[in-house]
Amino acid sequence: MAVQREAALTYVRSHREAFLDTLKTFLRFPSISTSEQHRADMEATARWLADYLRSLGMARVNIYPTDGHPVVYGELTTDRAGAPTVLVYGHYDVQPPDPLDLWASPPFEPTVREDRLYARGAADMKGQIIGVLAAVEALLRTGDLPVNLKFMFEGEEEIGSPHLAGFIARHKEMLQCDVSLNADAGIMGEDAPSITYALRGLAYFELHVQGPAQDLHSGVYGGVVHNAAQALAELIATMHDAEGHITVDGFYDQVRPLDEEERAALRRLPMDEAFYLEHTGAPALWGEPEYTPVERVGARPTLEINGIIGGFTDPGVKTVIPSHASAKISCRLVPDQDPETIYQCLRRHLETHAPPTIRWELKYIVGAKPAIIDRKSRWVRALSQAMESIWGKEPFYKREGGTVPVVAQVKDILGVDSVMAGFILPDADLHAPNENLHLPTWYRGIETYVHYLCNLA
Amino acid sequence: MAVQREAALTYVRSHREAFLDTLKTFLRFPSISTSEQHRADMEATARWLADYLRSLGMARVNIYPTDGHPVVYGELTTDRAGAPTVLVYGHYDVQPPDPLDLWASPPFEPTVREDRLYARGAADMKGQIIGVLAAVEALLRTGDLPVNLKFMFEGEEEIGSPHLAGFIARHKEMLQCDVSLNADAGIMGEDAPSITYALRGLAYFELHVQGPAQDLHSGVYGGVVHNAAQALAELIATMHDAEGHITVDGFYDQVRPLDEEERAALRRLPMDEAFYLEHTGAPALWGEPEYTPVERVGARPTLEINGIIGGFTDPGVKTVIPSHASAKISCRLVPDQDPETIYQCLRRHLETHAPPTIRWELKYIVGAKPAIIDRKSRWVRALSQAMESIWGKEPFYKREGGTVPVVAQVKDILGVDSVMAGFILPDADLHAPNENLHLPTWYRGIETYVHYLCNLA
Repeated sequence: MAVQREAALTYVRSHREAFLDTLKTFLRFPSISTSEQHRADMEATARWLADYLRSLGMARVNIYPTDGHPVVYGELTTDRAGAPTVLVYGHYDVQPPDPLDLWASPPFEPTVREDRLYARGAADMKGQIIGVLAAVEALLRTGDLPVNLKFMFEGEEEIGSPHLAGFIARHKEMLQCDVSLNADAGIMGEDAPSITYALRGLAYFELHVQGPAQDLHSGVYGGVVHNAAQALAELIATMHDAEGHITVDGFYDQVRPLDEEERAALRRLPMDEAFYLEHTGAPALWGEPEYTPVERVGARPTLEINGIIGGFTDPGVKTVIPSHASAKISCRLVPDQDPETIYQCLRRHLETHAPPTIRWELKYIVGAKPAIIDRKSRWVRALSQAMESIWGKEPFYKREGGTVPVVAQVKDILGVDSVMAGFILPDADLHAPNENLHLPTWYRGIETYVHYLCNLA
Repeated sequence: MAVQREAALTYVRSHREAFLDTLKTFLRFPSISTSEQHRADMEATARWLADYLRSLGMARVNIYPTDGHPVVYGELTTDRAGAPTVLVYGHYDVQPPDPLDLWASPPFEPTVREDRLYARGAADMKGQIIGVLAAVEALLRTGDLPVNLKFMFEGEEEIGSPHLAGFIARHKEMLQCDVSLNADAGIMGEDAPSITYALRGLAYFELHVQGPAQDLHSGVYGGVVHNAAQALAELIATMHDAEGHITVDGFYDQVRPLDEEERAALRRLPMDEAFYLEHTGAPALWGEPEYTPVERVGARPTLEINGIIGGFTDPGVKTVIPSHASAKISCRLVPDQDPETIYQCLRRHLETHAPPTIRWELKYIVGAKPAIIDRKSRWVRALSQAMESIWGKEPFYKREGGTVPVVAQVKDILGVDSVMAGFILPDADLHAPNENLHLPTWYRGIETYVHYLCNLA
């Protein structure tokens, strides 16, 4: 095992350019899952990925259709008796790239500047997928695999994985495994390896407000009707207090309090106010003052306005009273909050606060439960040791503020834990213009995967 | 005079189809002044209008360029000694037609359904321009004109007439007159002739809010930065109280109080709550409860959100924290408010209310003073008598909630009053989808113009 481990690491080091070329090809597909006009691009991406799995020698490679975008599957079996089976999870879809004018190079033309690769999906998470597959290729080319591997790559993570639970349930037997390796994860810094043991959930809504039956002239009717854009703004303003607490009744009821041991551990993380000021460019930080920034992004729920629109928004002047305005509102949830319960809380809040001068509708778009993972298991220890082999130090343990719905689904349906093993850096500009992958960290990540798979044997 | 008056009225009645055809041609030009992409259409509209004035036999017809859209001018002189000179004002530009999908027929394909003509600009105000010119044509074809006429048609009314004051000042001598007839006006109903004696002014702003330096992932950073769309909503919510009063300090300071005589007169107008509910389709009326709806739309100032936008507004789901959000905000002003003073009030309000977690900017876009007109003058009496000749009853006197910047400009620069003489109905859907012109009222309007010009002699 030790001999193969060294051979595989050498293989990785001598094939970096080839892995990077493969990643660039993958990144050129504009696989934007939320946009109906990119449906054909999503299918082409799935086909390319399936072909790539076949080129690695995988068995049972298939593109499984769903009611949304397809799931790409493949598997590799080791000859070693008693080897565990690891289900590798990833997603090949990406966020929309807008606003386009803020990109220094086009989002779907991967471009290396200094030691980073810029493209939509470079970090989240086509880079992570190619990283795992590079480690697998290195092990295959230098001997046998240390474990059995199954690969499940979905195309709907960025829209909340609405069809993945159904897919897992339908293919429960095929997907049977001992643990899941979820590569949709990051580390705290170039020299700060870390393991994520908790994820926030999500509840996504649309709030529509209707005032007058149609847009009105603000001269003729200004003063007698409630402007829909104004009324929407007034409703949104009822959802937080001036300190950043969410003022929706019942919103915090299911939040599992942080115990003192965990708060102490989180306080050791090197992300302070200055860190968040630097990484966000905000003029000042905001949010519940009785929690630290690290606690707020990892262990506390949020309610955000992801988008708002109403009335005349083109350049120029139009003196209109908008009849309709809407907002996309989403909540990041922490254990033990439940998306459906949060929906009911927000509905009741609107029933209480909406005035009789408007009509409103709150649509539930998608939801995902939060998750917490056992950080004492052998699966997590194997990763911790792999990181120590590469970085020469023990990783930090942290909560992640993002949502990976599949972690709760895999736990619910397959009954296994997920190990979050990915190497995205905090300044990767996920979901934003100029998303990027730090290449030296990416190469270290590939070597970490080699160690990890060997450690699991 | 009486003989020519009858001949001209007969001419009007026998040329209705021809006038309607001319109006349709005028309406097919998409003369949207606020939209840069319609600059060529604006020029084509001005050329067509100038040609039409020439075809009526006008002298000194010219298209005067401005720093924005051009002004079309022409004049007609009577042989009658001592006849007064009337400056007819109109605007050939229109509001943008969006939202397009709510139009029953395309906005720039004028379509008659039942007794109405549907098109953008049909009522506001190409129909009124062709109405005056039809009356002039009838008088010219049946004898001499009773008065001297000058015609000034601008192309920037819908964007606040930014270059008209400069034009009037530069051509003060050419425009010299005894009174201005402003055709950009309406009556209260098909059987309710009315004369407007006051107009609201306008102050138009854009409020930009910037939170983090760029759009952020709501999972990674949700909880530590102030969401720009949320912060904008919270600022907007500070601008009114729950009853609809504007809570911007100093906003009402310059408002001339309504005296009891005027309030009593306004109370006689037949527009009650039910009228406004029916015409707006709002679930309930809104606004300062100590004023009647008629007072609120005519004699009280407003602050409206004309448009709001921020973050992800396409269909689908994106979990983003918007870094930027903006709103178009405009105020309708009443005597003796001043747009510049209101800008300073709103700036101070934002300085007081904006939190340190965001940056903001308030841009002053355009402003226009409010106006009040002497309703005892001979110019207004002549119109009142013309209306009585057609409708068989005395008109109502009312304040108009809209803004016609030229009225204040003509008073300031030329020193003359404006008589508001137009026949737009309240359900004409100005600035909204399915704008329309009620044709029977339009024909009555043309005959009223004939009477009016004869009465002025």
